Amino acid sequence: MNGLLTDLYELIMAAGYFEAGKLREKATFELSIRRLPPNRGFVVAAGLPQVVEYLRNLRFTAEEIEYLRGLAQFRNASPAFFDYLRNFRFTGDLFAVPEGTPLFPGEPFLTLRAPIVEAQIPETYLLAAVSFQTLVATKAARLVEAAGGRDVVEFGTRRAHSPEAGVLAARAAYVGGCSGTSNTLAGMRYGIPVVGTTAHSWVMGFPSETEAFRQIQRLLGPATVQLVDTYDTLEGTRKAAALGRPLWGIRLDSGNFLELTRAARSILDSAGLTEARILLSGDLDEHRIQSLLAAGAPVDAFGVGTQLATSGDAPNLSAIYKLVEVDISGIKRFTAKYSDDKTSLPGSKQVFRQEDHDVLARSGECGKGEALLRPVLLGGELVEPLPDAAAARERAARSLRALPADLRRLENPGTWPVRQSQELAALIERTRRNLCTAPTGLS
Amino acid sequence: MNGLLTDLYELIMAAGYFEAGKLREKATFELSIRRLPPNRGFVVAAGLPQVVEYLRNLRFTAEEIEYLRGLAQFRNASPAFFDYLRNFRFTGDLFAVPEGTPLFPGEPFLTLRAPIVEAQIPETYLLAAVSFQTLVATKAARLVEAAGGRDVVEFGTRRAHSPEAGVLAARAAYVGGCSGTSNTLAGMRYGIPVVGTTAHSWVMGFPSETEAFRQIQRLLGPATVQLVDTYDTLEGTRKAAALGRPLWGIRLDSGNFLELTRAARSILDSAGLTEARILLSGDLDEHRIQSLLAAGAPVDAFGVGTQLATSGDAPNLSAIYKLVEVDISGIKRFTAKYSDDKTSLPGSKQVFRQEDHDVLARSGECGKGEALLRPVLLGGELVEPLPDAAAARERAARSLRALPADLRRLENPGTWPVRQSQELAALIERTRRNLCTAPTGLS
Repeated sequence: MNGLLTDLYELIMAAGYFEAGKLREKATFELSIRRLPPNRGFVVAAGLPQVVEYLRNLRFTAEEIEYLRGLAQFRNASPAFFDYLRNFRFTGDLFAVPEGTPLFPGEPFLTLRAPIVEAQIPETYLLAAVSFQTLVATKAARLVEAAGGRDVVEFGTRRAHSPEAGVLAARAAYVGGCSGTSNTLAGMRYGIPVVGTTAHSWVMGFPSETEAFRQIQRLLGPATVQLVDTYDTLEGTRKAAALGRPLWGIRLDSGNFLELTRAARSILDSAGLTEARILLSGDLDEHRIQSLLAAGAPVDAFGVGTQLATSGDAPNLSAIYKLVEVDISGIKRFTAKYSDDKTSLPGSKQVFRQEDHDVLARSGECGKGEALLRPVLLGGELVEPLPDAAAARERAARSLRALPADLRRLENPGTWPVRQSQELAALIERTRRNLCTAPTGLS
Repeated sequence: MNGLLTDLYELIMAAGYFEAGKLREKATFELSIRRLPPNRGFVVAAGLPQVVEYLRNLRFTAEEIEYLRGLAQFRNASPAFFDYLRNFRFTGDLFAVPEGTPLFPGEPFLTLRAPIVEAQIPETYLLAAVSFQTLVATKAARLVEAAGGRDVVEFGTRRAHSPEAGVLAARAAYVGGCSGTSNTLAGMRYGIPVVGTTAHSWVMGFPSETEAFRQIQRLLGPATVQLVDTYDTLEGTRKAAALGRPLWGIRLDSGNFLELTRAARSILDSAGLTEARILLSGDLDEHRIQSLLAAGAPVDAFGVGTQLATSGDAPNLSAIYKLVEVDISGIKRFTAKYSDDKTSLPGSKQVFRQEDHDVLARSGECGKGEALLRPVLLGGELVEPLPDAAAARERAARSLRALPADLRRLENPGTWPVRQSQELAALIERTRRNLCTAPTGLS
């Protein structure tokens, strides 16, 4: 399964490596980001379970191999290459930072070390899986920061880039700090709390708003959230208040939120429903949440869809997957890219997190602080079960609290220093010098 | 399968409708957009095959039902409801505009008419499937417009919001006018031409650039595209030119594109390789393509990734799925939402496309021009096989050529008039008046 879910050039290169007799060369690739998305002081790493699942199940079906054989690009590939694909398994090593770890440009999210064909093919899938979930987890962390302790729930499946992306968005949002999701499948699959109210169509589907409210109250009991803005928000609030308990609260989805939440709060309070909560949804983002709360809007929880599930203000991440080492029968070549605006650093690396900075070091080095990259797969086998989404969420919350407050600022955040170890700096310099004469450095 | 891939509130409402005895009420929902994304004069409808596949396979597994039973929100639901889910099938009707059709705000992409529970549950999935592919098809149309007849190929899987979204992005980009994709699975699954070159890691994986070029040339023959910017773009171009034919061309992925493509062109021409093409990739969008071509950059084809697969400048669509009619034993109630900024129009509709405007009419009306909404599923069964991606692409190209040129302008495009038929206008007015006394209108 999944063998063809990659860019064609990965498979072309796979054939090329095979035909060039490079099957035994071990390559090390690192996945990192070039720069932070706009207004981010960090990103929250997410997506590792999907990476692991992919690597462990990466196969080529007979149909897929037949398709490749028919392509012009594979006309000169030997039958032995297709046999190789038929028996393909990922047999390499994966090192990765745990989900929920804040990361910075140049730091590997993961390192793949495997025979070069096995390390090349996964590039496309790994970039997509890690980038998307990292974007959403990071956006969630911003929303939670803006909400200052109030619950933020993920409502974005309908706006996600495909329904399946919605499931992953729900998971990543939870890792980043959301309290729950409306995506039911994500709830079942990942153990995330699920939340749900009703839609405007529910209210429109009954002859009267009060009848619609009464019916849902009978079903949901104390979990009842009345959607009050189908016709007239405050009139709807009065009808919900008149029905009284059991009631979790009301949801507003349109209109002038500051005015309406204040008026709705006062209607609920006058009816003695002081414990009834106000859930706000509808085109929210971290800035709107921050300014509503600063203006004193009496909101208890936020439901965020579009901006969260698409990371609306930063819908893509400058993630790269770069070859850093090749090992031919024990002799290492260190590789880098120095052309113009897109550079990469040679050699397999480790990140040491210290109290007020990170150190980017060579992978074998000893260092102070927490070593972020840990073995996940060795020889294609899982070293130990991965932490679940709840554990990743805890790690994210703990790690983000440990960062300086200015890094969590929503605009113009501060910078976390990432220093190079002496050994790494020396390798970079050595590789660069060698590249003046030969395209790869020997160390 | 897929039953839980929806927002929890759809399932809560399903239970609510069931418990309220509304199982026989037929509801009609329409999926449309509120407004065009920024700088778009139209959107290109896409995603219908995924909608149809979902509706035809929508089921609830035993595991899914067990999960729902355990949720607090379903504590009061009756055993009969879970039995109902166990036997759930979509038995309704689906009307839709063919993929590749340009659409405008307020016009239905699709209309679902089914028992209300069956029509409610699909909301989330349908919105996500249609919105994402429509965004990407629309973005592709802009890129193709900017490229003025040159090929644009889709390279964005690694930037898509999950690898699976990448497969759908490839398909939608093709519908919108791209010539091919790098996504191999999309190639196999949808019959889209696949294209591929090599990555920088390929070049770095050999002791010399020339050796890397020679190896790939041996494999790809006349399909060879040399990636020349790993170390020094023009030096790389010279090495590629020195190896000569067979050669499709070269790819540049970084640097000053205008200067480098001119210099590269001249190197290729001097070597007698006048037929060798230049493929450009790397952070391209429609504006950059337009300005490069305006400045005379000698580019033959463009590979676009990030901006295309995420619709980077407009990563979400204001799509809505609104209840427009309820039919209870043959008596129709027309429904609409008039609150504040978010309104919807009552009654099932049809769109007639005429030469210089559309008419939004009631669904039973006769009208001039092409009726865009056609039956796709009747009683849950496919009326006829759907057109494939290539047919949708042809329809898009033909339809876009028929629109006034100012609608295709990349900024501040013109507006296509969408008029309401007299009958529809009368229904809107009647429903609005009735809503002053009762929340739903009778007609």
